[in-house]
Amino acid sequence: MTETLTGTPLTLTAFDWVPPVAQGLVRDLRVRWALKEAALPYEVELLAMGTQGEPAHLARQPFGQVPVLTAAQTPMFESGAILWRIAEAGGDALLPPDRAGRDRTLSWVFAALNTVEPPITMHQQMTRLAVDKEAAEIMEREVRKAVERRLGQLQATMEGRDWLVAERFTAADLLMATVLRGLRHTQIVAQFPKLEDYLARCTARPAFREALAEQLAPFEENAPRYAAE
Amino acid sequence: MTETLTGTPLTLTAFDWVPPVAQGLVRDLRVRWALKEAALPYEVELLAMGTQGEPAHLARQPFGQVPVLTAAQTPMFESGAILWRIAEAGGDALLPPDRAGRDRTLSWVFAALNTVEPPITMHQQMTRLAVDKEAAEIMEREVRKAVERRLGQLQATMEGRDWLVAERFTAADLLMATVLRGLRHTQIVAQFPKLEDYLARCTARPAFREALAEQLAPFEENAPRYAAE
Ligand SMILES: N[C@@H](CCC(=O)N[C@@H](CS)C(=O)NCC(=O)O)C(=O)O
Ligand SMILES: N[C@@H](CCC(=O)N[C@@H](CS)C(=O)NCC(=O)O)C(=O)O
Repeated sequence: MTETLTGTPLTLTAFDWVPPVAQGLVRDLRVRWALKEAALPYEVELLAMGTQGEPAHLARQPFGQVPVLTAAQTPMFESGAILWRIAEAGGDALLPPDRAGRDRTLSWVFAALNTVEPPITMHQQMTRLAVDKEAAEIMEREVRKAVERRLGQLQATMEGRDWLVAERFTAADLLMATVLRGLRHTQIVAQFPKLEDYLARCTARPAFREALAEQLAPFEENAPRYAAE
Repeated sequence: MTETLTGTPLTLTAFDWVPPVAQGLVRDLRVRWALKEAALPYEVELLAMGTQGEPAHLARQPFGQVPVLTAAQTPMFESGAILWRIAEAGGDALLPPDRAGRDRTLSWVFAALNTVEPPITMHQQMTRLAVDKEAAEIMEREVRKAVERRLGQLQATMEGRDWLVAERFTAADLLMATVLRGLRHTQIVAQFPKLEDYLARCTARPAFREALAEQLAPFEENAPRYAAE
């Protein structure tokens, strides 16, 4: 796909609407952002919310999720995999030029998705468990501690740095920023001033703002239809 | 690192001991397994359990974890990132030869770590939360449902297939097998006969058996020392 991503029509699959709690967090955001940073043009195909479990979609995304990126009739799934392919296809837009810098970026891509994100996802989902108030409080406290531990380690890494790798914005920062935004329902990031600055630095990029506006536009347009259901 | 992994001494960092519940699951296992499949020789450096938070280790692994793989003085962290680099360096040992097959393998590598593993990790960790019995039961049931949903989707994907990609063993199967083994404290995998067969097929590989024996050997040797503490 490194070769096929450039010079081929790209189609990104995203939802036509999601509930407000997920608006601005759906994972096609990181793919839109990366495509814009890499200056790769793409079309968007909107999937009707509720149809993601149908066979046609499962054939390209085995878990019935978004995003999917289709290049030359070949669909690719998992936002992390798609992001890495875009980074590799994007010249120096999202990766340092040297092998060691690229390896370090790859380590941080996995750290964002496999070390920092899991406790954050757990914190988001916890609130949906129908347990008694006391148990809910114990759980929230424990999971928050796990999140804070990771953010403390991440902030220590950022000491004296603006970006995770090679003193420049890379695919790792793009991904880490979208992962940290998963805590917007809390005040946790604000406890880590260096991370708060870092997140602001990432999301101030024009490509982020455009990607976010682009994800949100159809949600607003389609809201009346879904409200009526 | 694709270039630097071959023809350079490789050092894998793992723990000298872990509690029995983690023995055979520590994540250097997947790296040992991959290195053996790719026929890349390596040395092992054992880190004393309890010293992973010291500055020297944090300098190479920002979260104080294992594994780390060091090639030509450059440490790489995150088992997923290391595995992908080994796969790329290993010729056709862990990857199909064609670009589309490699892209699909990359999608499944991220699916294993970012879609299938998170609920499994949650199920492992849940038991440590000090909530009342009723709440613990509700949580176990809910998290088990989330795990079963993913395994059901995975089993549907495996319908009529022995391997995830390209009708052959790849890096994606290696990783998925290590992820599924994280459920060994439960009977959940046994509910999905095709997945149970698949897991047995993966772990019957000689490289897996050797990697597992290699991880376990120092734990047994060092157990008396840690028991004495
Ligand atoms: N690990 C996957 C997760 C994708 C994911 O969670 N997608 C959500 C939206 S952000 C989704 O499609 N949910 C709908 C569903 O599961 O039915 C990735 O990074 O691509
Ligand atoms: N996402 C990381 C996770 C690594 C991880 O969880 N390592 C565990 C052992 S399996 C560890 O080092 N735990 C010790 C600690 O956190 O202090 C990876 O895949 O490398």
